[in-house]
Amino acid sequence: MKKFLGAQTVRFSQPPTIKAAASIVGPKEGEGPLWQSFDVISPDVLFGMDSWEKAESEMARQTVALAAQKAGLPMEEIRYILAGDLLNQNSGSTFGMRSFGRPFFGLFGACSAIGEGMSLGAMLIDGGFADYVIANASSHFCGAEKTFRFPLELGTQRPPTASWTVTGDGAVVLAARGEGPYITAVTTGAIVDMGVTDANNMGAAMAPAAADTLITHFKDLHIQPGHYDKIITGDLGKIGQDLLLALMTDAGYDLRDVHEDCGLLIYDRQGQDVHAGGSGCGCSAAVFAGYLLNQLRKKEIKRLLFIPTGALHSVATVQQGETMPAIAHAVAIEA
Amino acid sequence: MKKFLGAQTVRFSQPPTIKAAASIVGPKEGEGPLWQSFDVISPDVLFGMDSWEKAESEMARQTVALAAQKAGLPMEEIRYILAGDLLNQNSGSTFGMRSFGRPFFGLFGACSAIGEGMSLGAMLIDGGFADYVIANASSHFCGAEKTFRFPLELGTQRPPTASWTVTGDGAVVLAARGEGPYITAVTTGAIVDMGVTDANNMGAAMAPAAADTLITHFKDLHIQPGHYDKIITGDLGKIGQDLLLALMTDAGYDLRDVHEDCGLLIYDRQGQDVHAGGSGCGCSAAVFAGYLLNQLRKKEIKRLLFIPTGALHSVATVQQGETMPAIAHAVAIEA
Repeated sequence: MKKFLGAQTVRFSQPPTIKAAASIVGPKEGEGPLWQSFDVISPDVLFGMDSWEKAESEMARQTVALAAQKAGLPMEEIRYILAGDLLNQNSGSTFGMRSFGRPFFGLFGACSAIGEGMSLGAMLIDGGFADYVIANASSHFCGAEKTFRFPLELGTQRPPTASWTVTGDGAVVLAARGEGPYITAVTTGAIVDMGVTDANNMGAAMAPAAADTLITHFKDLHIQPGHYDKIITGDLGKIGQDLLLALMTDAGYDLRDVHEDCGLLIYDRQGQDVHAGGSGCGCSAAVFAGYLLNQLRKKEIKRLLFIPTGALHSVATVQQGETMPAIAHAVAIEA
Repeated sequence: MKKFLGAQTVRFSQPPTIKAAASIVGPKEGEGPLWQSFDVISPDVLFGMDSWEKAESEMARQTVALAAQKAGLPMEEIRYILAGDLLNQNSGSTFGMRSFGRPFFGLFGACSAIGEGMSLGAMLIDGGFADYVIANASSHFCGAEKTFRFPLELGTQRPPTASWTVTGDGAVVLAARGEGPYITAVTTGAIVDMGVTDANNMGAAMAPAAADTLITHFKDLHIQPGHYDKIITGDLGKIGQDLLLALMTDAGYDLRDVHEDCGLLIYDRQGQDVHAGGSGCGCSAAVFAGYLLNQLRKKEIKRLLFIPTGALHSVATVQQGETMPAIAHAVAIEA
């Protein structure tokens, strides 16, 4: 049975349900406006460990375990774990998931990871390959700064275009049957590279990828932005959001009434000194697993298009003068 | 329709076919015993670029383009590209695939990447989400040494347990219909960590993961090793192979007559001074796309169990004294 249509979209025959989700964040995220929506706010940014990398893995482990528990499922019932993060060789996910003994697919989509995991997870379920799947994504401010920028100890000043990597994790339990909300369609992004070279302006690199996936999604399904109550990108931040709205207006789509961005939701941008906004795999993952899923359950949002966005550079590619490719994966969810 | 059985295995309802494959390798691999099976042996280890990272991406780009061409498909017909590599933030794959404009899933399974990609790709096709998918994996000796070990310029001596990262790429085009060979089943690996800490002995870290996936595969499908003409692991090398055979004997399975390892096939281990054997994402990918697929097509192998293996460490995790988790994904292929 053919379930794909248009250029890049899949519509599910038996839409998988979001059975449960869990979110764990660090102290700074716990001081932001969404604090009430997270399951756990850890006062300890090291999560009891002795390195940033181990802290991220421990946060990921705890979040996935909590998600399975909230779904009422022993870990053995989880057929696949799909997980991604920003650290070199995905060590946040790999070391975080190693104790579970479940079939594991490591993903790399930078900050689009939760979108990639939810898309593939929904396809595995609708394809008949699993009853229960967990998609997970994590990021840690200190680990990301160490990996991509400068050691924290240097106290390097950040330009206003920079975003603040969320210390957080979101895990989503997908199931073949249940009450919903349901994943009804996904549009898988292609890599888009518009030539941005400034690694301190990821919003500018990612906005064209978000626009590309959005326009494809609307065309593939013959719908308009108003089909959705909310269209929520991953971590474009303020600069990326402005660019996205302009690009979409140029393409004939007005998103102004429905668009929000997880990077702008998670922090009080002025009060918390996060410059362009939040970013990182854990940004969209934790905001979805907490705040957005709550809104779907309360039917405050009935139709959501969730589009995690990722900038796909590394330190080596930036140092070699390469441009920054980006990607965005759209997941349509109906209450 | 439920297609999963046992603990970790999927059996396909309409087995996807391997429509075509392409392999491109570097000069050292072209001097090895499998040289005739590769599509292209590049005399230039830089592939015309000015960095190892760019060289790997260019090799990946050329291989995927060649695979689509050999399948007789314009790139627009490829519904998904799934690709993985060893570089930080998967830059080999991301930068290699960015020009194709196709929906992209970045994977991280270290050297198991081609097994992860073929498994997910087959599920996407059998699930009804695509007619054509390309799975790709690449590695580059110089990029891997720079990422994981020492700059080549230092001329650092390597211990006898070390393996030699293959400069190579294998791309596999999967299709919903065709003449075969067919992917009939997959067993997705769980992460196994037996406490090995020596990053120069990846065979020892990976052998328990290969054994775990193999035993699960046999139990899930109620078969014995003799079901297959060949059982071929990814890049265990000599030390890993010896360990795997011992672990399997302990578990009651005798693999000695059917087991080979891509890391031992690709080089003349004595003559080419590669110590324990070949490794890297490109090792199993290029050996499969060339040598093994040829044997399947000629029916010299009728039933193959292909098990790419990966060690999931990073430099940071090794430096922090962490053990080395590993994973292995089994793909059953019948001519």
